[in-house]
Amino acid sequence: MRVTAADLDLATALAEAAGAAIRPYYRKPAGLEAKDDASPVTLADRAAEAAMRTLIEQRFPDDAIIGEEYGVREGTSGRAWVLDPIDGTRAFISGRPIFGTLIALVADGWPVLGVLDQPILNERWVGTIGRPTLFNGQPAETRRCPDLAKALLGTTSPALFDDGQLHAFEHLDGAVMSTVLGGDCYNYGCVASGWLDVVVEAGLKLHDFAALVPIVEGAGGRMCDWQGDPLTADSIGEVIAAGDPARIDDILEAMGCRGH
Amino acid sequence: MRVTAADLDLATALAEAAGAAIRPYYRKPAGLEAKDDASPVTLADRAAEAAMRTLIEQRFPDDAIIGEEYGVREGTSGRAWVLDPIDGTRAFISGRPIFGTLIALVADGWPVLGVLDQPILNERWVGTIGRPTLFNGQPAETRRCPDLAKALLGTTSPALFDDGQLHAFEHLDGAVMSTVLGGDCYNYGCVASGWLDVVVEAGLKLHDFAALVPIVEGAGGRMCDWQGDPLTADSIGEVIAAGDPARIDDILEAMGCRGH
Repeated sequence: MRVTAADLDLATALAEAAGAAIRPYYRKPAGLEAKDDASPVTLADRAAEAAMRTLIEQRFPDDAIIGEEYGVREGTSGRAWVLDPIDGTRAFISGRPIFGTLIALVADGWPVLGVLDQPILNERWVGTIGRPTLFNGQPAETRRCPDLAKALLGTTSPALFDDGQLHAFEHLDGAVMSTVLGGDCYNYGCVASGWLDVVVEAGLKLHDFAALVPIVEGAGGRMCDWQGDPLTADSIGEVIAAGDPARIDDILEAMGCRGH
Repeated sequence: MRVTAADLDLATALAEAAGAAIRPYYRKPAGLEAKDDASPVTLADRAAEAAMRTLIEQRFPDDAIIGEEYGVREGTSGRAWVLDPIDGTRAFISGRPIFGTLIALVADGWPVLGVLDQPILNERWVGTIGRPTLFNGQPAETRRCPDLAKALLGTTSPALFDDGQLHAFEHLDGAVMSTVLGGDCYNYGCVASGWLDVVVEAGLKLHDFAALVPIVEGAGGRMCDWQGDPLTADSIGEVIAAGDPARIDDILEAMGCRGH
C-alpha cells in the first residue's frame, strides 16, 4: 500500500491534536482529577485518543481504529490506525518529558506509517515505508555499530521481562558496552537518530510498537522479534530495534535466540 | 554558614558556564572526538568542569573545589564547591535531555547551596539552606504522600545496588504503587517539584548528592541515608529522598533498615 499525502496530513493532525489534549495535564497536581477518580494521565490519555478518533472518523470513515484507551472500531478498507496516546505513562506522571504519542497506519497487517510525537519538547519522528524517516522535518539516520561490545542498549525496565526473557536480556546486557533504563518509545526515536544502538523489550502490544517500525527502518535500522522475524500485527510483543542491521545476528546470538 | 548573594550569583554563573560548554556536544556524533579518543561526553564533562573551576578560582580563591573530572583543589575557607558537570552520562550519550549539571557549596561538611541545571531544557532547581527551593525562579514544593502504597518511586538502575541493597530496594519496590527507572539527578528535581514521591539510590559520591540535599529539603522534602541519618560529606552514598518527610520511617521499614 502506498502512503498518500492525505495519510501523512492526517498523521500530523493526529499528533497535533493529541499534544494539545495532553499538555494541560503534564506536571499538574492530582487536583485536576475527575469525579470518577481518573488520574491526570488517564484523563490526558482519554482526551488525546478521543481527539484523534474524531479526526480519523471525519477523514477516513472506512478505516479501522485500534486505540489503547477505547479499543477497536472495525473498518472496511483493510487499513487501521493504531493509537497509543501516552506511551511511557510512568515517565509522564513523574514529570519526565520523554513519553510519547504513537500513531501508526497498518495496512493488511503491516505498519506502513508511524509517528512518535513528544508534545512537551516539540519533537516528532515520522517514518513512512520506503522513505527516509524525518525528525522534526529533517532526515534521521541510525548509526553504524561495527562491534556489539561497543553498543549502547536501552530498555524501559527489566521488570517487564518474564524469567526466560530476563535471562536472555541479561546475556545481551553483559555483551554490550552500557545499558540505559527507562525511556519507553523515546528510546526508539533515539535509535532512529543515531544516539542509541539497540533497544530490546518484551510484552509490547501492537499500539506500542507498530509506529516504531517505519521510523527505525526508514532511518536505516531494523526492527524484528526475538526470532529475527519481521514485526506484524500478530507479533507477540518481543521486540528488537537495531540501528545497524548488521548487528541483528550478534544480538540474537548474545540473547541465545536463533538467528536467521 | 549563611549563603550570600555573591554565592548565589556564582552558582548561577557556574550553571550558565557549564551549560554553554555542554550543549555543543549533545546529540553530536563521535566524529567530534579528540585525538586522545575522548568521547563527546568526556569532552563535555571536562570543558564544563574547567569553565566552572576558572570562575570559582577568580571569585573565591580561598574556597576548595571538589570536581568529578579534575579532583580536589584544597582551600582555606572551610568551604568547598562540589561539581558534577554531567550527572547522567548514559542519558547524555543516548540523547535524553534529563541529565544534569550538579553544583553544591559545602560548608564545614554540610551542603548549604545546591543547583541542578538541565541545559537542554533550560530547567534549573536552586536550593539554599533555610530558604524555599526555586524551579526556574518559582518556588518548588514537594507533594504530600499520605500512604507509601500510593507512592511513585524512582531509581536510576537496580544494577547499581549490591546484593544486600538490591534486596532492600526490592522490598520497597513491592511496597509502592509504581517504580520508574533511569533519571539520575533529574529524579530529585522531580521530587522537589512534587511529581515523584521517593528516590532511593546507592553508590553515590559526594558530587552526586550534595547539591540535591538543599534542593529537596528547601522544597519541603527530606534527604537522608539508609539509616535515616542526615547526608554529609562523609556519607557512604546510600541515599533516600522523600517528598513527604512523614514517610521516611515507612520507607526505612519497608527496606528493612532501622528507622529513628
